[in-house]
Amino acid sequence: MEGPFNIAEYRERIQQVQQRMDRAGMEALLVADPANMNYLAGYDGWSFYVPQMVIVVESDPEPYWIGRPQDANGARLTTWLSSDHIRSYPEAYIQSADHHPMEVVATLLRELRLDRRPIGLELDAYYFTAAAYLALQRLLPAAAWRDASLLVNWVRSVKSPAELTLMREAAAIAQYAMETALAVIEPGVQEADAAAQIFRAEIEGVEGLPGDYPAIVPLMPSMERTTASHLTWVDRIYQVGDVVNLELAGCRHRYHAPLARTLYLGTPPDDYRRLADIVLTGVDAALQAVRPGAVCEEVEAAWRRCLAASGYEKASRLGYAVGIGYPPDWGEHTMSLRAGDRTLLRPGMTFHLIAGMWIEPRGLEISETVAVTETGVEVLTHFTRDLLTKTDFPTGRSA
Amino acid sequence: MEGPFNIAEYRERIQQVQQRMDRAGMEALLVADPANMNYLAGYDGWSFYVPQMVIVVESDPEPYWIGRPQDANGARLTTWLSSDHIRSYPEAYIQSADHHPMEVVATLLRELRLDRRPIGLELDAYYFTAAAYLALQRLLPAAAWRDASLLVNWVRSVKSPAELTLMREAAAIAQYAMETALAVIEPGVQEADAAAQIFRAEIEGVEGLPGDYPAIVPLMPSMERTTASHLTWVDRIYQVGDVVNLELAGCRHRYHAPLARTLYLGTPPDDYRRLADIVLTGVDAALQAVRPGAVCEEVEAAWRRCLAASGYEKASRLGYAVGIGYPPDWGEHTMSLRAGDRTLLRPGMTFHLIAGMWIEPRGLEISETVAVTETGVEVLTHFTRDLLTKTDFPTGRSA
Repeated sequence: MEGPFNIAEYRERIQQVQQRMDRAGMEALLVADPANMNYLAGYDGWSFYVPQMVIVVESDPEPYWIGRPQDANGARLTTWLSSDHIRSYPEAYIQSADHHPMEVVATLLRELRLDRRPIGLELDAYYFTAAAYLALQRLLPAAAWRDASLLVNWVRSVKSPAELTLMREAAAIAQYAMETALAVIEPGVQEADAAAQIFRAEIEGVEGLPGDYPAIVPLMPSMERTTASHLTWVDRIYQVGDVVNLELAGCRHRYHAPLARTLYLGTPPDDYRRLADIVLTGVDAALQAVRPGAVCEEVEAAWRRCLAASGYEKASRLGYAVGIGYPPDWGEHTMSLRAGDRTLLRPGMTFHLIAGMWIEPRGLEISETVAVTETGVEVLTHFTRDLLTKTDFPTGRSA
Repeated sequence: MEGPFNIAEYRERIQQVQQRMDRAGMEALLVADPANMNYLAGYDGWSFYVPQMVIVVESDPEPYWIGRPQDANGARLTTWLSSDHIRSYPEAYIQSADHHPMEVVATLLRELRLDRRPIGLELDAYYFTAAAYLALQRLLPAAAWRDASLLVNWVRSVKSPAELTLMREAAAIAQYAMETALAVIEPGVQEADAAAQIFRAEIEGVEGLPGDYPAIVPLMPSMERTTASHLTWVDRIYQVGDVVNLELAGCRHRYHAPLARTLYLGTPPDDYRRLADIVLTGVDAALQAVRPGAVCEEVEAAWRRCLAASGYEKASRLGYAVGIGYPPDWGEHTMSLRAGDRTLLRPGMTFHLIAGMWIEPRGLEISETVAVTETGVEVLTHFTRDLLTKTDFPTGRSA
C-alpha cells in the first residue's frame, strides 16, 4: 500500500463510521463520494467518471472496493484492502444500455445476505447519479434504503495529527503558488501564461513536498469577471489598473489548503482600498472568534458585524469545512460559517475561511485555511494578508 | 458574450435539441451536465459543484440558466442569454437541510405552466445527484418525468467546422504537452516535477492559442502502476528501465484533443518492443477502418483481428466520442468503439481512439484524436506514433 497513513488510522476511521451506521440502524453503507472512498480505503485514481464504490459492512473491519476491471489494479496498489475485498464489474457494463455496474454491488450485497437489510446511500454525493439510484432500487427491491448523506463526511470533520501535517504541507505549497502568481502577473502577460505558472507551482510543490492536483483549478477572474466567483482565465493580456482575484490551493495526498488574495496592478483607488481594509478587519475579527466551544455562526457573526459597521453585507457564507477533495470540490459539505449553523467547533476541525466580495464593479477576496486548536486557531496558510499591489512594471508600463 | 461561437450556432444547437425533444414528447428539458450547459448556453465556470441547470423549453428559442447568485454574473459574462433568462436561487439554499435549489427550478416550470407536462431529465449526468432527482419529484408531483440521458450529447456527436477548428487547436497543444513530457522525463527527475511541466504546457498552449484546463489531469503511471489506467504521479524519482504511460490533452474553449503515448527510459526488452509493434499495427488497421458509412464496431473489429493474430486481446473499448468536457471526463458517453456499437460513422464525428493495454507486468498506451471526414479519417493529433524511448541520459545514468 502506498499513501501517508498507517493501517491503524484507516481501521479507526472505519470503526467511527460503523458506530454512526449502528446509531442510524444501517447494516451496510454504499460510499460513492471519491473523497470518502479515499478516506476509508486509501483509493486514489482518476476513475470517478465511471461508477465505483466503497462498501462498509457493519460486521467487517475491512470495507470492499468495487470498480472497473482496469482500475482494480489501481485499488490493489493504492488501498490497504486484501484482494478478496476488491471486486470489479465487467468492462461491457460501462455506458451500456443493457447492464449497470450496480449489478455487481447488488450481487455482493446478496452474497453478504444484506439485500433485505437497511442500507445507507450517499444520495447527494457527486458521481452518485439518479440513474445509479434507480438501478439499485430495481436490483434490490427488498432493501431498506436510508439516506446516509454526509455520514462519512462528518467523521472526516475532525482531523488527526497526520492529517493536519498534510494540510500544513499543502499550505506551504499554496504559499509558493501564490508567490508565483504575484511574481508572474503583470501588464503585458497573457492570463493563460500566468495560469500555467500557477499550475506548475501547485504540482511542483516545495522542497521535499511534491504537490498533488488540487480539486479545483486556479480561479483567477480579472476585471469585471471579479464580480463572479468561479471563472478561470481567458484569452486576454493583463493591463495596468487590472484587478485579479486569485483562489488557488496546495494539495498533498488529496488534502487541501486553499488560499485567496486579490492583486491590483497599480495604485488602487481610495474606495477600493477602503473595501480591502474593511474586509481585512472583518477577517481578523472572524479569526479571533475561532476557538473550541464556539459555534460556526459566531465566527460569521463577528465578520458580519464589522462589515455592517461600514455599510457592507455579504449574503454568501464566510467559509466551510475543508480537507480531502477530488474535483469538483475541496469543501467537505458539513459545517458552514454562516448564520444558522450551530455546529460546535472542536480541536482538529479545519475550515477555508473565505471573505469573498463578488460585487460591482470589482470584487475582492481574502482567505485563509485554518484549524481549530485546543485554545483557539492556527492559521495554516502563510501569506501577507492584505490587498496585493504591484506598481513597479517593465519599461513603458509604469502605473 | 465571450466565447468562440456566434449566436447563430447556439440557436442551431437549440433547434436540434428541440427537434429531439419533440420526437420524444418532452416540453421541457433540464440539462445538468456542465458540458451540455456549455454547448447550449456557452456557460463556462467552475460552479458545477453546486446545483445548476440549463432549461430548454419547447416553444422558446432561448434556454434558461439557473444557478447560484454569485455565479449569475458569470452567466451574464459567458452566455448568449438575455438577463431575463438568467435566474438564481437564494444563497442560503446551498448545502441546506431546509431548502433545495431545485425549488427555483420548480418555480420557473410552474411560471411557464410546464409543471404538469412531460419533462426530460439527464438521469445519468454527473452532478445530477439522486437527492436532486428526489427533490424534483417532491416539488413537482404532477410532472411526467422522462429520461433524457444523452439527448444533448447525441446532438454534440457531429461537430461543426468551428468546433473542428478548436479541436485541431487543442491537438496542437496536446503535441506541445507531449513534447514537454518527452523532454523532461528522465532518470533522476521527480514524477511531480514532470507533471508540473506537462500541466504548464497544457495551459500555456502554443503561439496564439492559450490552453484551457483539460477535464482530466495528466495520467502518468509508471512501472507496475502502468497496469492500471487512471493513476497520477507519486512521490517517486524516475529510474533507468522505467515505463511511463502518458495520457494528456490539449483543450481550447472546453474542446479536447487527448493523446497517449508510452515512454521507455532505456532500451525496451524484445517482448515489450514486440507488444508495441502489435499495438501500432492494430492502431493502423483501426484508423484505416474509419470512414463515413462504417459502424463503430467495425473499427474495433479491425484492431481486434490484428491483436488476435498475435495472441493478445483487450477487453475494454478501443475508443469513444470526444469533444467538450469538464471534470471528470472529456468523453461524450455516446458512441464507443467496441463490439455491439452499431452507430453509423458520419463526417464531423470525433473520437479518442485509445489502444490501452493495461496488462502485467507493464502496460502500454497509444492513442490519437480523430475526426471522420467526407472520405475517411483525419488524425487531429500529430506526434510520432511509436513507443517512445530515451537512451541518452545525463552523466552517470546511461542506460
